[in-house]
Amino acid sequence: MSADRYAPTPADRFSFGIWTVAPMPAERAVHKLAEIGAYGVNFHDNDVFGFDDTDEEREERIAAFRKALDETGLVVTTATTNLFSHPIFRDGGFTANDRDVRRFALAKVMRNLDLAAELGARVYVCWGGRDGAESGAAKDVRAALDRCKEAFDILCGYVLDQRYGLRFAIEPKPNEPRGDILLPTVGHALAFINELEHPELVGLNPEVGHEEMSGLNYAHGITQALWHGKLFHIDLNGQHGPRYDQDLRFGAGNARGAFWVVDALEAGGYEGPVHFDYKPPRTEDDDGVWASAAACMRNYLILREKVRAFRSDPEVIEALGAARVPDLSLPTLADGETWRDIRGFTPDVAALAQRGMAFERLDQLALEHLYGIR
Amino acid sequence: MSADRYAPTPADRFSFGIWTVAPMPAERAVHKLAEIGAYGVNFHDNDVFGFDDTDEEREERIAAFRKALDETGLVVTTATTNLFSHPIFRDGGFTANDRDVRRFALAKVMRNLDLAAELGARVYVCWGGRDGAESGAAKDVRAALDRCKEAFDILCGYVLDQRYGLRFAIEPKPNEPRGDILLPTVGHALAFINELEHPELVGLNPEVGHEEMSGLNYAHGITQALWHGKLFHIDLNGQHGPRYDQDLRFGAGNARGAFWVVDALEAGGYEGPVHFDYKPPRTEDDDGVWASAAACMRNYLILREKVRAFRSDPEVIEALGAARVPDLSLPTLADGETWRDIRGFTPDVAALAQRGMAFERLDQLALEHLYGIR
Amino acid sequence: MSADRYAPTPADRFSFGIWTVAPMPAERAVHKLAEIGAYGVNFHDNDVFGFDDTDEEREERIAAFRKALDETGLVVTTATTNLFSHPIFRDGGFTANDRDVRRFALAKVMRNLDLAAELGARVYVCWGGRDGAESGAAKDVRAALDRCKEAFDILCGYVLDQRYGLRFAIEPKPNEPRGDILLPTVGHALAFINELEHPELVGLNPEVGHEEMSGLNYAHGITQALWHGKLFHIDLNGQHGPRYDQDLRFGAGNARGAFWVVDALEAGGYEGPVHFDYKPPRTEDDDGVWASAAACMRNYLILREKVRAFRSDPEVIEALGAARVPDLSLPTLADGETWRDIRGFTPDVAALAQRGMAFERLDQLALEHLYGIR
Amino acid sequence: MSADRYAPTPADRFSFGIWTVAPMPAERAVHKLAEIGAYGVNFHDNDVFGFDDTDEEREERIAAFRKALDETGLVVTTATTNLFSHPIFRDGGFTANDRDVRRFALAKVMRNLDLAAELGARVYVCWGGRDGAESGAAKDVRAALDRCKEAFDILCGYVLDQRYGLRFAIEPKPNEPRGDILLPTVGHALAFINELEHPELVGLNPEVGHEEMSGLNYAHGITQALWHGKLFHIDLNGQHGPRYDQDLRFGAGNARGAFWVVDALEAGGYEGPVHFDYKPPRTEDDDGVWASAAACMRNYLILREKVRAFRSDPEVIEALGAARVPDLSLPTLADGETWRDIRGFTPDVAALAQRGMAFERLDQLALEHLYGIR
Repeated sequence: MSADRYAPTPADRFSFGIWTVAPMPAERAVHKLAEIGAYGVNFHDNDVFGFDDTDEEREERIAAFRKALDETGLVVTTATTNLFSHPIFRDGGFTANDRDVRRFALAKVMRNLDLAAELGARVYVCWGGRDGAESGAAKDVRAALDRCKEAFDILCGYVLDQRYGLRFAIEPKPNEPRGDILLPTVGHALAFINELEHPELVGLNPEVGHEEMSGLNYAHGITQALWHGKLFHIDLNGQHGPRYDQDLRFGAGNARGAFWVVDALEAGGYEGPVHFDYKPPRTEDDDGVWASAAACMRNYLILREKVRAFRSDPEVIEALGAARVPDLSLPTLADGETWRDIRGFTPDVAALAQRGMAFERLDQLALEHLYGIR
Repeated sequence: MSADRYAPTPADRFSFGIWTVAPMPAERAVHKLAEIGAYGVNFHDNDVFGFDDTDEEREERIAAFRKALDETGLVVTTATTNLFSHPIFRDGGFTANDRDVRRFALAKVMRNLDLAAELGARVYVCWGGRDGAESGAAKDVRAALDRCKEAFDILCGYVLDQRYGLRFAIEPKPNEPRGDILLPTVGHALAFINELEHPELVGLNPEVGHEEMSGLNYAHGITQALWHGKLFHIDLNGQHGPRYDQDLRFGAGNARGAFWVVDALEAGGYEGPVHFDYKPPRTEDDDGVWASAAACMRNYLILREKVRAFRSDPEVIEALGAARVPDLSLPTLADGETWRDIRGFTPDVAALAQRGMAFERLDQLALEHLYGIR
Repeated sequence: MSADRYAPTPADRFSFGIWTVAPMPAERAVHKLAEIGAYGVNFHDNDVFGFDDTDEEREERIAAFRKALDETGLVVTTATTNLFSHPIFRDGGFTANDRDVRRFALAKVMRNLDLAAELGARVYVCWGGRDGAESGAAKDVRAALDRCKEAFDILCGYVLDQRYGLRFAIEPKPNEPRGDILLPTVGHALAFINELEHPELVGLNPEVGHEEMSGLNYAHGITQALWHGKLFHIDLNGQHGPRYDQDLRFGAGNARGAFWVVDALEAGGYEGPVHFDYKPPRTEDDDGVWASAAACMRNYLILREKVRAFRSDPEVIEALGAARVPDLSLPTLADGETWRDIRGFTPDVAALAQRGMAFERLDQLALEHLYGIR
Repeated sequence: MSADRYAPTPADRFSFGIWTVAPMPAERAVHKLAEIGAYGVNFHDNDVFGFDDTDEEREERIAAFRKALDETGLVVTTATTNLFSHPIFRDGGFTANDRDVRRFALAKVMRNLDLAAELGARVYVCWGGRDGAESGAAKDVRAALDRCKEAFDILCGYVLDQRYGLRFAIEPKPNEPRGDILLPTVGHALAFINELEHPELVGLNPEVGHEEMSGLNYAHGITQALWHGKLFHIDLNGQHGPRYDQDLRFGAGNARGAFWVVDALEAGGYEGPVHFDYKPPRTEDDDGVWASAAACMRNYLILREKVRAFRSDPEVIEALGAARVPDLSLPTLADGETWRDIRGFTPDVAALAQRGMAFERLDQLALEHLYGIR
């Protein structure tokens, strides 16, 4: 194995959240991420400066961050707002029962949208981590959806009025830290967007672990998001099914799932940064933090190589045909046909019923590509 | 307790799937359901007649079914198609890789739409139980979504052309019998509908157990469906979290969840039949089957009484206020305000941060209504 | 309803962990718990004094704690050691890879065993929260079991040598904060105990939420623990299935499960304190903390009343008979029979196969007792 | 890649359940399994002959099965009893509430033990699939444990009296087809065995999917079983976390988990057959059935090669040292030490607290061995 083969390049557009690589000054994170080959970063306002910082402290911290970006050439691809750490957000941000909290949350987002635009971000992630409830009566879900829509309508209006080149990406999550969170899956968020005043400005930022916490197939989820034209950003990491949010490095967790995730991104025309939202386990020291961050990118490149080999393997192509996978791209009605042409359709039922799908052979080929023995 | 207090009436609009009450001739199920107080039924084509029946056998079986409906006054509220039992559907119906299977599936649905319309059904449920995959390459999910859209576009066209007063209700499910099923949750199906040619004709039929298999909150799910105007039908039953599809009687399973489900239906203006899609456990004989079916209705009525008592309890109303639940219905921006009015909004952060939400007290009141001690 | 009916008394032996009621000086927690009617407390060493406290600070903090106990009459039923908060325990305590950490963990436990004995505790809980791993090679599980056994053998020896009247209770948990934790369920811990030098000194402290995080039935789990004579302590709280550890108040979460938990404790002869290991949600202020703590006890008493009514309801007794539940207590072989007497046993298979179990009717009776309508 | 490299040999001791490879006469399954390289088989009584077969039909079917075994040289490694398909077992076998069902279940097992012994089986698997309950009052769990113990005591006595060289292996499962099953995990069954009259005759047959349905780590589970000396048999297959029992081919499902399973078996000294209890998906025809069966063995051999390469890779050995994994095999007390030697132990806490575990690097090496790029 050549070391270079899996070395990240700017063309790979790998990015990390500042918060993912442990508590440290943002500028240090930027320098270290640049060293290991990252292309960009995503930041919460309070990754860079403190919630209680004065304006001067805030400017000072931003200047240090910006300096690190300039020195390293790292791009700010994405930004977001911390609407969950401070106790004021104990009941959420956009959908807190307290109206003043909602107003403050929107003000906090607007202020960071200004910074995001200034730093060149193209996507603004919204994770409503505390927008939910532990118990039934505490949250009027219909009203919460109204307020959530109101928030996005206001923020879209703000971005348009300010002529910022920013689009929003909603990050769904089913639970943790709340018992149940609003817009719990890719599907719920996609549906919600359709009710907004500016649906074209809002898409998704699905996270591997968040969908797998619900036992859902992440590759299927992002494929549906792509089908709707709504995959604005991704959060790659690892998870072991329904349990606490593990945020393992990408590749760890559901290894076979990761193969299909890369396949879905490659096939689906995703054009955003390849973003990692993972957390180094608490067992790691500083070296371990950077080793795990580097491994996220490396695993993506390893899997990308495997996926490409899989898709171009003649035996796979033949097996896909045997499994009639390409036939699903044929419209069910032929050109010019209507329901009248098939209403009385009676195929050779016995013959079709006996016809195996040959999926096991096909899946074994994929697994052997993952194993690296083909 | 008066026996009458929880006796079902036609105004309650309780209905059952013919298939839910064990294998028996449809006419017997109709008579027994009428005896225990049901208002309506839902049927798969092959609940009434066999897949391989001749046209004569089919007509004979339908006549017996219709006779039972006439004799009992039971209404056909809903109908659906069995696209999963016969081996021809081993890879699904609308999204089977084999085009002839897709064409046959549509033909089978159209034929049963005719019967459904004739019998007066207003909703046609589509559960794509085998539309999914166990492995990654076997199903091109993007193409599957295209085919699924094509199927609904064709069927909506058919219903419009035939002037049937039918609307479709998609029933989401995450897995079982397939490893992963297309449109796995309420959210994914809601999003999908927006891409159809006739979105107004297509809504949802969410099932308690199917959402809880993903660890999702069913009351939240149907509330979001109602918010989108898409709760066309419901399938009530019971489940114990992520595991196999248990189809317990309504009330069994997540008892607290059931309270909030009834609350969501009562509050949300749901107007369809209150449908039970449960399965008596294999331990039961015929008496047990009807005892469990009757208990579904009884539990709904018990919970409805409790929910109404909860919502009209002055202490609850006071506690909702203390938890600022009504405040969430206030728009975040006052009339005439724009983002400019809140951009610099700075509340008394310390005061808000210290303010408890009083949700535990409120939830305890709800629990005590469930316990029947208030 | 009389307010007194569900008021806790010392005879109910309700206890709380000091840590459960939010961060505050232990003496304040003791006073508040006494006010709401608790009987006893459980404490981690570092709930009372800080990890880095000097000996003097430690003594001062213990004195304040002891004074509060004396003033209130609250009993220390249980104690435990914090082997998870400090970074030194990042890889666990008894099974940390680092031998010095293991030695330090044992020393820390011994020091707190002295305090526990002095304060009159009878049970010493061991939760090896960080004894586990996120990845496969990081932990040699066989060696970890050896070290875990060594730790309990040493600590049992210590307790015997010191003539402390203390027994140990292992608290199983499947995951969180580690990816997988050693001794993940009631069963695994019960099996482990059999390999110890002093198995009679070691039992279990099962927590509702920890078992339900694995989708297991907690009432079944504690019944098996009782069957083995190993239910030394319990941790009651609430959880919504496989997800993060929610630590809801007892009664919230799985409401029907809570009914069966109380039934299992009442029927099984559990003699320890009725301990609550829950956490008030972050939404609550100080009032909410105590409201939720009081509700734990109240819900236990409500459920106990219901369980007793259920077990003495003549219709239930009749239904249990119809379900042949009492027959399971009859030995399968009659007195004096051996395998020879049944080897050729052929019952009326057809008759038995048709006989329903009448479980649905029985379960509906239980549910109606939960609903409070019987 | 040489085709031979992953070809199964008798020394690999691969075996399959007759029932796993779809409904067909047992003799056909035997011949086909021999063709693809299996070494042995496991059978339920009713895989070979029907529940209602006359004695003559039974003998005829057994003769055909035996002939196939003779012709192919396949070994019967294991046998088991079907105590779940016939409606008589609707409430279980050993713990059915109906005493006559329990007596019949034992008679059915004894009769098949005779056949198992005659055919040379060494292990007799007991899966109490219907020994459980959907609801709380239906099953007296304490009595059920008594009856389950009684059953094993009787059967152990039978085997000893008959001088059969058979040992029993309990197969745990948490749920499906019952809501909750008795002895739900590896741990619960291990604990149960300690209460038997002949614990030495009873061990475990853990199945990958059954443990993963509870979100448990299967490699950890079998390692604990090995630690107790109780891993008598294994059921390898694949699963995607908490959901229905998927019975995927080994290697599919949790691919990283499968690597650690093979590692645990190789390292732990497991000596039984490498048994696959999987089900070809319904999508497959006969060719697909055998392709998937062959892939189970092939994947085991691929993973075994990878595991051996991992364990002998000098960089891995170095990384294990850096992670102090070997140190966990050092007793915490040095030779001759007692608790007195560590009671006051105070290490350099600050230094230990800062020391990273280097687990991420180690796990990445393992992942790269799985990927086949090292």
